[in-house]
Amino acid sequence: MSYSPYLLSLLQRIGAVEGDLLEVAVDGREYSGVLMPHHEFSHPDVMILKLKNGYNVGVMVTPSADVKVVAKRESQERAPRPMGDGKGLPQVSVLGTGGTIASYVDYRTGAVHPALSAADLLSTVPEMADICDVKAEVLYSTFSENMTVENWQHLAGVAADRLNSGVEGVIVPHGTDTMGYTAAALSFMLGDIPRPVVLVGAQRSSDRPSSDAYTNLVSAARFITSSDAAEVLVLMHDSSSDVSAAVHRATKVRKMHTSRRDAFQSVNAPPVARVDFEGGIDHLAPYRRKSNVKVSPRVEMEKDVALVQFYPGMSPSMFEGILEKSRGVVIAGSGLGHVSRELIPSIRRAVEAGTMVVMTSQCLHGSVNLNVYATGRDLLSAGVVPGGDMLPETAYVKLMWVLGQTSDLEEAGRMMVTDMRGEITGRREMQ
Amino acid sequence: MSYSPYLLSLLQRIGAVEGDLLEVAVDGREYSGVLMPHHEFSHPDVMILKLKNGYNVGVMVTPSADVKVVAKRESQERAPRPMGDGKGLPQVSVLGTGGTIASYVDYRTGAVHPALSAADLLSTVPEMADICDVKAEVLYSTFSENMTVENWQHLAGVAADRLNSGVEGVIVPHGTDTMGYTAAALSFMLGDIPRPVVLVGAQRSSDRPSSDAYTNLVSAARFITSSDAAEVLVLMHDSSSDVSAAVHRATKVRKMHTSRRDAFQSVNAPPVARVDFEGGIDHLAPYRRKSNVKVSPRVEMEKDVALVQFYPGMSPSMFEGILEKSRGVVIAGSGLGHVSRELIPSIRRAVEAGTMVVMTSQCLHGSVNLNVYATGRDLLSAGVVPGGDMLPETAYVKLMWVLGQTSDLEEAGRMMVTDMRGEITGRREMQ
Repeated sequence: MSYSPYLLSLLQRIGAVEGDLLEVAVDGREYSGVLMPHHEFSHPDVMILKLKNGYNVGVMVTPSADVKVVAKRESQERAPRPMGDGKGLPQVSVLGTGGTIASYVDYRTGAVHPALSAADLLSTVPEMADICDVKAEVLYSTFSENMTVENWQHLAGVAADRLNSGVEGVIVPHGTDTMGYTAAALSFMLGDIPRPVVLVGAQRSSDRPSSDAYTNLVSAARFITSSDAAEVLVLMHDSSSDVSAAVHRATKVRKMHTSRRDAFQSVNAPPVARVDFEGGIDHLAPYRRKSNVKVSPRVEMEKDVALVQFYPGMSPSMFEGILEKSRGVVIAGSGLGHVSRELIPSIRRAVEAGTMVVMTSQCLHGSVNLNVYATGRDLLSAGVVPGGDMLPETAYVKLMWVLGQTSDLEEAGRMMVTDMRGEITGRREMQ
Repeated sequence: MSYSPYLLSLLQRIGAVEGDLLEVAVDGREYSGVLMPHHEFSHPDVMILKLKNGYNVGVMVTPSADVKVVAKRESQERAPRPMGDGKGLPQVSVLGTGGTIASYVDYRTGAVHPALSAADLLSTVPEMADICDVKAEVLYSTFSENMTVENWQHLAGVAADRLNSGVEGVIVPHGTDTMGYTAAALSFMLGDIPRPVVLVGAQRSSDRPSSDAYTNLVSAARFITSSDAAEVLVLMHDSSSDVSAAVHRATKVRKMHTSRRDAFQSVNAPPVARVDFEGGIDHLAPYRRKSNVKVSPRVEMEKDVALVQFYPGMSPSMFEGILEKSRGVVIAGSGLGHVSRELIPSIRRAVEAGTMVVMTSQCLHGSVNLNVYATGRDLLSAGVVPGGDMLPETAYVKLMWVLGQTSDLEEAGRMMVTDMRGEITGRREMQ
């Protein structure tokens, strides 16, 4: 989609071309920034400016707008650099999956569309070429609520290939809706990895003011090339201000806000690191270091697994129906890991029939403990496997993976209570 | 259960009786406190001391223990006061339901048992008689995971009766596991009330060190008699330190930690008030004031309602089975309120068949918004009712209640999107 005739003639009249520094005053608001390429999803009446702070902003130009060229491209420093070839820098593989980080707002409808190529995305982040030699591929272009187990398996396979080919790290731009689930799946499937795999999302699309796509992508590239951590990680804004990003362990992170840029929070663990947008990287917790290990992904998953939250008034027949149809069920119980007493006989029958039932807590924070109250002891005696302080979502992904690795239920039970990827932390908060 | 012969003879030898101030040194730890009555759930080898800070602590007395009487009951100030008759003070109704706030640790097994009478509970909080004229009743003695819709209905009826008889407020000691659900149910069922109904829980039973039962009960009595707020509220510790309690609106509160004393958090809203344990009460948000209104409880509930969290890999047939069996379904969708595209046709069919489907977010914080992405718009067109920033649990309780009030689905839909008890706040955080 190109500029409207009005905006095109205005830009021509003042002699503005891409890369020029412009000052724009419209409806009482002033913007100063470098004119960026107009892309196919932009509204015809909108110009995209890259502001001094690195953000792109879409400015709707009305007839009252006052637009001035302040500096021409060749005469000022902030002109957008063309994407360099990054030769000689560490190789980083970018595996695009879709999501807001790769999408644009359609200013006519207000709706968000996915970008169709990783190159399109990366063109707005030329700074990455100063940091690394980017090899971008688009695997999917989907909203992350549509990610499937098959997507996880394929993505793990491709990431393993790229790691084994010697890249310094893998960046996975991903929709934020289910980024935590995918991160946990990659963590279990990939096992010991030589270099980091960093999932990156955005809560604001890249042509909106205050988009976090740019800073999160650049921070991921900096983290991969500067830190010696080699885990599956999630990198997102650290606070509602625009100062730093948090790097979360894949199995401990959860989307905890629908819209804030710092929506992702580590639960029951500190983040692994913090990346300051001005420079430094602080490691906040122990982590696995880079190595020369070859990745041997194990991607098998049992798909007949369900995640069920307990609530008062839950229908025992509905609950029993879910148990009967599943090879594994993760319950997000109340408090320390409870359900109502009338549900326990169904759990006992399901366990006896070979279904693995794992208990987590809908509180999210803290650990289950089935030894404190009679309900918990009844659940243990019915054969429930305690999930420690695992997030319900992580326990769900882990149970699918564990049941895909072994058909021996005792072995599966041992794997569920054993910390494999940082998903269970020993500490229990007692305050 | 009485004292063991050893402990009984030790107490007799030093002449210690209930109310005496004792100093006890055992295994290197020292305690100073007033000897409390030994109750039926206490271990025979344990003496209960009320410490200076108001907490009760159970001290296991081993043969190495050094126990001294420091002051006799009649000669020191901190002797426990007998429960006064509170005559002339404001009447407060206490409706016991069970839970940790009314339970004791069995020191032999480490397990927690429920206390069987509200009087038993209140005997450890004689200070309440300085604040109000307590009328205590035990309605149930159950762990709150066993609370049923019928319990909610009965409890609402009794609370309404007590409010209509002119009490200054109602305190409902309740297990913390499902206290948020019960609070929301009471809030919708009771409607406009003349005086507050305050649910109070404890994360530590009353004879454990650092029990929060004592301070939460006293704070509830102080809040009821000092504040002019008249809503259904939840009062629990405000932080991990022992300084103040937060008073949460019933429809906005959620148990967010399995074990911390400040487990309850207001989500998408500030707490209504803070009660300082040393004295003051700060109101932090607008609230309904006391009045002379008569309560007309509306307790009808539709029980065929389900709460379902969406997750990648969710079985469409399981999801369809839940929709088919329910007159109402609340989905805790991903992000702004999404499910995978393959689930949307089932939702459309269910809505056409007369099932009400309400969308909330598993992020908990923030609001759903079905207008941003294509998935959201498809859900709206399938007939999904957006839940705003309602907690999934509150939306579940509200949907049961709304479908119990009207069989007109259009009217029910209007009620679901209308703020009735502070459950939907207009603000959406845009940071």
